[in-house]
Formats: sequence, C-alpha cells, structure tokens
Amino acid sequence: MIYFDNSATTKPYKEVLDSFVTVSNEFFGNPSSLHRFGVQAEKLLTQAREQIAMLLEVKSSEIYFTSGGTEGNNIAIKGAALMHKSKGRHLITTNVEHASVRSAMEQLKQEGFEITFLPVDKNGRVQVADVEKAIRKDTTVISIMHVNNEVGAVQPIEEIGNMLKKYPNILFHVDAVQAIGKVPQSLNENRVDLCSFSAHKFHGLKGTGVLFIRDGVRLLPLFSGGNQERKIRSGTENVAGFVAMAKALRMTLSKSEQGMGRMREIQQILREGLNRIEGLQIHTPVENSAPHIMNFSLQGVKSEVLIHALEDKGIFVSTTSACSSKRKSPSKTLLAMGVSESLADSAIRISLSFNNTIDEAKAFIATVEATVKHLRKVLN
Amino acid sequence: MIYFDNSATTKPYKEVLDSFVTVSNEFFGNPSSLHRFGVQAEKLLTQAREQIAMLLEVKSSEIYFTSGGTEGNNIAIKGAALMHKSKGRHLITTNVEHASVRSAMEQLKQEGFEITFLPVDKNGRVQVADVEKAIRKDTTVISIMHVNNEVGAVQPIEEIGNMLKKYPNILFHVDAVQAIGKVPQSLNENRVDLCSFSAHKFHGLKGTGVLFIRDGVRLLPLFSGGNQERKIRSGTENVAGFVAMAKALRMTLSKSEQGMGRMREIQQILREGLNRIEGLQIHTPVENSAPHIMNFSLQGVKSEVLIHALEDKGIFVSTTSACSSKRKSPSKTLLAMGVSESLADSAIRISLSFNNTIDEAKAFIATVEATVKHLRKVLN
Repeated sequence: MIYFDNSATTKPYKEVLDSFVTVSNEFFGNPSSLHRFGVQAEKLLTQAREQIAMLLEVKSSEIYFTSGGTEGNNIAIKGAALMHKSKGRHLITTNVEHASVRSAMEQLKQEGFEITFLPVDKNGRVQVADVEKAIRKDTTVISIMHVNNEVGAVQPIEEIGNMLKKYPNILFHVDAVQAIGKVPQSLNENRVDLCSFSAHKFHGLKGTGVLFIRDGVRLLPLFSGGNQERKIRSGTENVAGFVAMAKALRMTLSKSEQGMGRMREIQQILREGLNRIEGLQIHTPVENSAPHIMNFSLQGVKSEVLIHALEDKGIFVSTTSACSSKRKSPSKTLLAMGVSESLADSAIRISLSFNNTIDEAKAFIATVEATVKHLRKVLN
Repeated sequence: MIYFDNSATTKPYKEVLDSFVTVSNEFFGNPSSLHRFGVQAEKLLTQAREQIAMLLEVKSSEIYFTSGGTEGNNIAIKGAALMHKSKGRHLITTNVEHASVRSAMEQLKQEGFEITFLPVDKNGRVQVADVEKAIRKDTTVISIMHVNNEVGAVQPIEEIGNMLKKYPNILFHVDAVQAIGKVPQSLNENRVDLCSFSAHKFHGLKGTGVLFIRDGVRLLPLFSGGNQERKIRSGTENVAGFVAMAKALRMTLSKSEQGMGRMREIQQILREGLNRIEGLQIHTPVENSAPHIMNFSLQGVKSEVLIHALEDKGIFVSTTSACSSKRKSPSKTLLAMGVSESLADSAIRISLSFNNTIDEAKAFIATVEATVKHLRKVLN
C-alpha cells in the first residue's frame, strides 16, 4: 500500500494517539473547574500552548486552540474583517486559496465587503507588486496562503510581509495548513499577524488546530460563551486533542529537516519519471514549490479514472483538494494558472509525508507507466 | 475519590476511547477523499450519523456534527438570527441560559438585534405565558435551555413548543446539553427546530457535539469552506470523535432509565442529608428538576472555601458552571431566582453521572457535616 494523499490527511503518529488516550483517561477534568481535576487539565493545556509557542518561536499568548484549519481561517478572516469594519470593508486574497478562505471571503461579500481576488502566474504564484497595487485606503485584511494545497506553489509570504510593513493598519493572514513542517517560515521575523494550522495535516488528530494571533491583534469571536481561549474561541477545550497536537508538532518539526530532504529526493524521482510519460504534464512548478506535493495531468485520462486504476494497485492519490474533490468541478488553482479545463479535469495530486520512501516513488512511477499503457489501450 | 462534577465534564467511557483509537488508526482517511480510505471514513461518519439519528428518533439528515455545545448554540442562534434578519431582529431567551447562549445573544445585540431576556420564578422556571407575551411580529428565534446547568431546573420545553405551534415562523432552539440521558424529550413530537448536544457531558470526547436542525430550517454557517455537514459546518470531519460520540450516546441512553432512577435515589439522600445541616439552603427545586444536579449554599461559607475543603477529603464538586467558575461573579441563575448575592456567593453544585453510588452520597453528606462543623469553628 502506498499512501500518497497526505495533504488530504495524515495518519496520526502512534505517540500522538497514546498521548490522547492518556490525557482522556487520566486528566479528563474541565480546565475551567476550580478543583484538582480542572487545575491538572488546565496545566496540561498551558504546557501544550507553551510547547507549540516554543516550536513556532512565538509567545504562548499568541497561540489559540481551534477545531482545525477551516475554523482558523474563518476566525482569522471573518473575525478580523468584522472587528475592523468601521475602518474599511476591502479585503484582498488570491484566486488559488483553500475553499475555507475563498468561501469566508465570499460570505463577507454578501455582508457588504469588497473582495479583490488576485491572479497568479503560470507557476501559481501571486506577484508582490499585484498585492501592493490592490491595496486601498479601506483595505483591512489580506489573506494569502503559504503553500498551495493543490499544486504546492509557495507564495512569497516573506516579501509580501516586508512590503506590508509600509501598511501597519492592514492585518496579514497566512493559511499555513500545508506549509508547516515542509516549508519553514519565521512567524517571529515575518510580518504576519494571523496564521492558521491544522493538526491532522501533520499526524495530529482531526478536530484540532492552532491559530496564531499576534499580540495586540483584535478579532471578533465567532463562538461566544465561556470565554475560553481569551474570549476568541469559547467552548470546553479539547485538552487531550491539543496535548496530542503539541506532540505531533514536536515530532514533525524534529523530523522536518531530514524529512524535507527525502521529500525533495522523492519529488525529483517522481518528476523525472512522470516527465518520461507521453502526454503527461506536470503542474507543480520546479521553483518555489513545496517538497511534498506533485500535481500532474495525463492528457485524455480523467482524474477519477486514473485514481481508481491506481487504487486497484494499492496506490492512493487524489484529484485536487479533498475538500473540493466531490464537487467535480475542475481545480480553481489550475484554471488560475492558465491550465486548460480539459487538462484540469485530468489532474492528479500526489502528496507525501515523512514516512514515504524512494522505493514507493519508484513503484509509483512503474505503476503509472503500466496503468497508462493499459488505459490508453482501453480508452482509444 | 468521589467525582460529583459531571455537569462540568464526564470521564469518557472506556469503549468510547477504544472506538476513537480504532477509527484513528485504521480509518484515518479524509471522508472527502474519493479513494477507499475516504470512502471508508465517510461510511463510518454516515453510520455514526444514522445511529445518533435513531437514538434521538429523528432523521439522519437532521443530525449535524459540531465541535461541542458552545458551537452548537452559536451556530443555531447566530445562524438562525442572521439567516432570517430580513424578517425581523427580535430574539427571546431567558435570564438563566448557559454563557454560550447568553453571549451569542449579546453579540447579536451589538449587531442591531433586540433581545428579550425573560425572568424565571423562584424555582428557576420560565413561564410559558411570559414567553408568549414577549413574542412580537419581528421575533425570529426563541432559545430556551432544557435543563439549567447550575440548579437543574427543567424548563417547560414541551409546553413552550405547543404554544409556538401558533407561530410557525419562529424558530425554537433548545440547549439540551445538560438534559440528554437525564431528562428525556421527544424531538420527534416536540415543536423544536434546533437542539444542541455536547458529547463530553455524556462520557464522549471533548471537541465533539451534535446540532439537530429540523429538515427545512435554514441557517447561515459560521464556518464556510469545503461544505462539509451540508454546508452548515465546513472543515474536515473528526470522524473518530463522531463515531466515539455515537457509541457514548448509545451507552448513555441504554443506561438511562436505570441510571435516572438511581440518580433520583441519590438526589433524595442528598436532599435529606443536606436539609439536616443548619444554615444550608437547597436551591434545586423539588419539582421540575433534573435528577443529576443539586445546588445549595451554606450560609457564611464561600463556595471556594467549601470546594477546597471537600477536595481535601477527595470530593470534587463545583461552584456554578465550569465555564463561569473563574469569573468569580455570583451565579446569574441564582440571582434570577431571587437568591441573595451573599447566598449565591456560597453556592455549590453537585452533579451526578450514572456511575455515582448511594454510598458516595452518604459519604458526601457525612463529609459535608464534618467539614461544616470544622469550618464554622475556624471561621467564627
């Protein structure tokens, strides 16, 4: 079995699940309770927060626990836009964001906000100059992903942040769900105000995530209630899940340097192998791309046909993003990059974890070659 | 050790955690993925949804997975109010709701909604006639909890629902977080449109919950994105958590009849024992109250003093709700019931699960008696 769909979700590390079970069993108290069970649970929560802060090199007061990437992106964008709507109602993003960013923006549009969706070049990258040109007096929030979830293009987050130093009143949100552990950034040095992460993308558990909110940045909460997470995210904290997430992040980052190196090797093997196949076009750019994603189309073979043919051989890949895979509309990212609709309909995404091997990449190439030969015979 | 703080949170059942681990390990796919791992995960999610629907005697299309009670209450109230704001901006609730309902209402007030907070009688109950009197032409949502989390008062949900049959355009939301398994209601027969539940209150896992949305009721989502949960709650589903929640609900409801009977016995022992203590006042009403909550004040002894004294003897109780316990302001519910501020400052909540025993209740009474004697000596 070759699991090449790690951008959809990863398998939780054994140690992560073990942590979850231990905390759920032994420290099941409500962190808001005043007695020992509560105090213990709160202590664990604080430790998890401090550990994540240390790993991300930010302050623990800047770490907010969420239920995942979608919640993080929604709180960041809607929370910032609604909190500052008296200052302006113009928001900037790109054409290639994850559905949770795009939809949050579209929902705000219904509420009277104006949204600029910036184009990307053929490599899936937004231009810093385009971002700056789009800025207006009433721009309050800019949201740009770090790593594109479909093709792996890396956006010039640092350069955009540097440019934004001239615009101190604009909040800069980065969706780093696909970047963490694979494309490093320094939240400490970069001029980023808000940054979202999702644990199940780095071998943590579904239903847990982190939103970095730089000290001093104010958001309108989407959930109000018991004022947990310093009023930004009310609701009894998933203590076991957040402790498990801290462990997953520590393990991921400790493996990161070596893991990124191997991913690059695997990616190179995939690129060379795929390039040999006739009628195959790779969409993932050579430069400014993440090490774990490889997106390609096989002309004349619809994504789903190839996915299921590969699945029969024990290989698991995806069309575009998992979240959009059931919509059956062609990838918005590929269209924005200028890929034709028919080619976009054939797109396949491979996404790696640190557990994938070079042998798997070689087996994958051999299988694709054989499958293509077979499919072309059948389809033509 | 006597754990009497089950309304704050319960210990997950062993079988629930086992389910979580099995699903996380073996079925870790993203339910939106098209391959087998995704299909398996989606199948489990569907099964969990159908099981919960069957247990709640509603349709599976009416079950929406959330991250817990606070999210359920926020989606229901804000989602309904915002979706229907063109029809009116008047909402009705009571003075004794959980913080997540009260704060959601207060946040909507900032957005231009008018809120009627209804009073309760000395037993913590709202009057059906008061609800009807408060209805205006522009009323769109009424939110009333089933069981009060602080004193256990049971609201006349069924009667309010019956009265509301005359007002088909008003959406009726019930916060049933403290009721499920302890105070039955028929969502099928009652005229309830929206109803929130939280898994960690019935031995499920924190970070999981259910919102019942009657077919045809439309809400504005708080999270937008991949359109999971039929667009109401985007974000990769916590499959393992929801499967575990279905198991927790099944176990809870199968134990419910016997469990409620024993809770009533325990409550009776507690009531008789507490009534013997001089200067002790029980706030939980004798009639129309849930079997698992007993709230009382010991005149002249602040809540925190008694909580910590009991904790020294291995007994865990709480002040009011866990969510509000750190605010150190007196219970809003008790004040609304006409309890004096000084007595409210001394309030203690006992909350039972099906695992508590009659022996624990007896030991509790003996410990309170001894502690009171000791504290009175020290404090006077």
